[in-house]
Amino acid sequence: MYQIDLNCDLGESFGVYKIGMDEEMLDLATSVNIACGFHAGDPTVMRKTVQLALKKGVHIGAHPGLDDLKGFGRRNIPISAVEAYDLVMYQIGALYGIIKGEGGVMQHVKPHGALYNMAAKNKELAEAIATAVYKIDENLILFGLSGSELIKAGEKLGLKTAQEVFADRTYQKDGTLTPRTDAHALIDKSEQAIHQVIRMVKEGKVHSIQGVDVPIKADTVCIHGDGPYAVHFAKEIRQALKDSKVVVQGIRSNRVKGD
Amino acid sequence: MYQIDLNCDLGESFGVYKIGMDEEMLDLATSVNIACGFHAGDPTVMRKTVQLALKKGVHIGAHPGLDDLKGFGRRNIPISAVEAYDLVMYQIGALYGIIKGEGGVMQHVKPHGALYNMAAKNKELAEAIATAVYKIDENLILFGLSGSELIKAGEKLGLKTAQEVFADRTYQKDGTLTPRTDAHALIDKSEQAIHQVIRMVKEGKVHSIQGVDVPIKADTVCIHGDGPYAVHFAKEIRQALKDSKVVVQGIRSNRVKGD
Amino acid sequence: MYQIDLNCDLGESFGVYKIGMDEEMLDLATSVNIACGFHAGDPTVMRKTVQLALKKGVHIGAHPGLDDLKGFGRRNIPISAVEAYDLVMYQIGALYGIIKGEGGVMQHVKPHGALYNMAAKNKELAEAIATAVYKIDENLILFGLSGSELIKAGEKLGLKTAQEVFADRTYQKDGTLTPRTDAHALIDKSEQAIHQVIRMVKEGKVHSIQGVDVPIKADTVCIHGDGPYAVHFAKEIRQALKDSKVVVQGIRSNRVKGD
Amino acid sequence: MYQIDLNCDLGESFGVYKIGMDEEMLDLATSVNIACGFHAGDPTVMRKTVQLALKKGVHIGAHPGLDDLKGFGRRNIPISAVEAYDLVMYQIGALYGIIKGEGGVMQHVKPHGALYNMAAKNKELAEAIATAVYKIDENLILFGLSGSELIKAGEKLGLKTAQEVFADRTYQKDGTLTPRTDAHALIDKSEQAIHQVIRMVKEGKVHSIQGVDVPIKADTVCIHGDGPYAVHFAKEIRQALKDSKVVVQGIRSNRVKGD
Repeated sequence: MYQIDLNCDLGESFGVYKIGMDEEMLDLATSVNIACGFHAGDPTVMRKTVQLALKKGVHIGAHPGLDDLKGFGRRNIPISAVEAYDLVMYQIGALYGIIKGEGGVMQHVKPHGALYNMAAKNKELAEAIATAVYKIDENLILFGLSGSELIKAGEKLGLKTAQEVFADRTYQKDGTLTPRTDAHALIDKSEQAIHQVIRMVKEGKVHSIQGVDVPIKADTVCIHGDGPYAVHFAKEIRQALKDSKVVVQGIRSNRVKGD
Repeated sequence: MYQIDLNCDLGESFGVYKIGMDEEMLDLATSVNIACGFHAGDPTVMRKTVQLALKKGVHIGAHPGLDDLKGFGRRNIPISAVEAYDLVMYQIGALYGIIKGEGGVMQHVKPHGALYNMAAKNKELAEAIATAVYKIDENLILFGLSGSELIKAGEKLGLKTAQEVFADRTYQKDGTLTPRTDAHALIDKSEQAIHQVIRMVKEGKVHSIQGVDVPIKADTVCIHGDGPYAVHFAKEIRQALKDSKVVVQGIRSNRVKGD
Repeated sequence: MYQIDLNCDLGESFGVYKIGMDEEMLDLATSVNIACGFHAGDPTVMRKTVQLALKKGVHIGAHPGLDDLKGFGRRNIPISAVEAYDLVMYQIGALYGIIKGEGGVMQHVKPHGALYNMAAKNKELAEAIATAVYKIDENLILFGLSGSELIKAGEKLGLKTAQEVFADRTYQKDGTLTPRTDAHALIDKSEQAIHQVIRMVKEGKVHSIQGVDVPIKADTVCIHGDGPYAVHFAKEIRQALKDSKVVVQGIRSNRVKGD
Repeated sequence: MYQIDLNCDLGESFGVYKIGMDEEMLDLATSVNIACGFHAGDPTVMRKTVQLALKKGVHIGAHPGLDDLKGFGRRNIPISAVEAYDLVMYQIGALYGIIKGEGGVMQHVKPHGALYNMAAKNKELAEAIATAVYKIDENLILFGLSGSELIKAGEKLGLKTAQEVFADRTYQKDGTLTPRTDAHALIDKSEQAIHQVIRMVKEGKVHSIQGVDVPIKADTVCIHGDGPYAVHFAKEIRQALKDSKVVVQGIRSNRVKGD
């Protein structure tokens, strides 16, 4: 039996500013990554998003990012490994308390934006982030780019990890994502995107932009909720996976009952 | 035997901005309230302050404040009870994780500045804050102004509380602090301040500005570390308490071993 | 001949967060109040909004607010008159440079949200704000609530003022707005709102909630662009004014050619 | 006759956070660069600093930086040339109004920290910044690293420039500063630092770390006010310049009387 998790970034509104189609995505995703107030989100948005997710029974994770509301956490602000540890620990803790207050359990952590990308390649940052996750709760699942330094750092510490793949991005022959600066970085045909996802899940392979197949591990697929088309595409992926006999479900935690 | 806790606000630096004589105060205080990044502090300052406090064996608490770095959390920004719950929960959680990461335990929560003052008088805010404290960890001790709504809210929930008194502030005949707008709000003679503290601890009374004695409960005294004179005065209080056979020690938690 | 200005708040987006239907409103308003980065807006949003407004030939004003992005400048954060002067001067200057860089001219200043409301009633704040406007450019027009302290402060300094009225708010018999906390604060029938505006413009009177007519000066009407219905209503008002032979045009500045 | 300007960063406090020995430095510097609220400073600090500088008769300049209070504007946050234009224009305008309100005149602009360094090497950023300066007031003097892209961009637009040199930094044989990551980046002997400055001023040369002399233009020297030793060193430099018959005075503006 094949299975896959569908994860989505949620709770990215801030004050009066609304972003994302959170309610719709809670019906499509099996895991949600909730912004923690640094690149997006605020305490009230976080609590409301947690309440919605718990009501829908979707797995909840923290989505810590750089302290950069203006840049939405997408700018590569240089930080040391120690600073990465500190800001990730802070944000996970903040959401952890909110989830506990609502009677729920945090399932995973997925860094956001520039922090995610830096942690994919920079071993020191990756280890700092994985350590923060491990120290706050060793049962947390670490989400990271498939094959990345972040995944390796998590495994080294004994954390359960979830390797993330993308439907709408092309891959290089070394298994990395084609940089967005490249004209061929994005897949805009939904058929091709869906085909890529199903193959990654069922065959553990992706057809690289250089024309050769590359092995890839796919535990979770990132889906987006920023606009009507994104929601529509998420529905298509979900349906296609079902049609291909791939079970869409959350990652099973190591957490034992009563934890 | 008489005993008292001496608590001090710590970790109020931000980025390159340094404030407070944290190292000196850790030798004088038995409990420290660490700023949580909203009115002061940042994740790195918080982690470093926790490390220092653990090294000195001082009890650690969270010091959540309004989201107002520019006003240092001292401006009465109107917030609803729900927002108070959210921002207190967020901040306690953030510090909670950092302390856990350093192998320590959070002992108490004391709201800061305008939030402290609003929670002293506003029952709804007080209950919202106490609820956040209770939900994240029912073993936390809630610090609040002696006789305040915050203390009442904590007791109602079954939280252990610590009633705070001030050495350098005068009291009204109803047991409240004389507002700072009043010319007689502050006690600037250290002798008088020390006398007031010792009497509050030993006799449970304070001489109000109206000339009558008022009953007051004193579990903890606030000491300041913002400048050489403040540190000197904290030393004087500590010595005077010792000379008066009052034991200076942290509040004993309900937390059972192994928690 | 009757005439009126229609003013609208613009440029309230921030980073990736979009708010308001700015392009649509530029076809309906004759004056726009551009957020200056404190309660909303950022330097890039400001410059783009100025470019759009210049292209449409609409009068441009600064819309300074409290330093409160999270609360969108709507929370009554207590500030001194000196602080009000400082933050208004800072924000006007910031937009002033941006407009000059685009070859345009700043026409007016209208405080935002809580700052607008506080300046309507608090004489000291009103005078501080009017002084900032006067000192940066005495040809600027000061927009304020009709009959408010802000208007009086502007007139006292010799500033040209524009008295603002509201279509969708009810009035008290003393000419002030019915507080939003009152159940009858808002007018939700567009017919009634339009009737109120036209009467204010043509007769200089408004029917108060207590049932008596109150004299009121109407130089400009506030229109909103936050959502499809708001835009539709703005169109209705504009058409109704035209049908009633009221000329919709910007306030004429005292500024002499070549200034 | 030889002459030199001594410039110093000022007004870097924020809210309750104090930094720098501003009053002392106003007696030593002939030009001051006032932080504009992005990397440091706030509207009230800015206005007070302007008042102090005007009282002392020191030339006033804007010191715009990246929007990064936490990193004090020292982190290389990637921004586009357009964003650089926008944030520099915003900040210059903000200070411009404040200075005008106090009856003074802005003399120059010097970018801060990471923005200064990026503008020294990146031609596009340099031109964007120079354009903002030119568009807000073509009489402003642009301060930049001696020989940098920023100076070239200013000259290209016809702006008067001031080439800045450093007393406490070593130089490379291509005339650039030795990067701080290099062990030999800093000069910690005050004698050597003073000798370097005087030679740059009088001979137009600096002895590079590679052992060869390099031509360098010195219009202004950066002096620091962050601590007692920095102030002492600034005094030493000032005295040594006087002893060497170098006149310490501000840069003469192109601004004609009555501007």
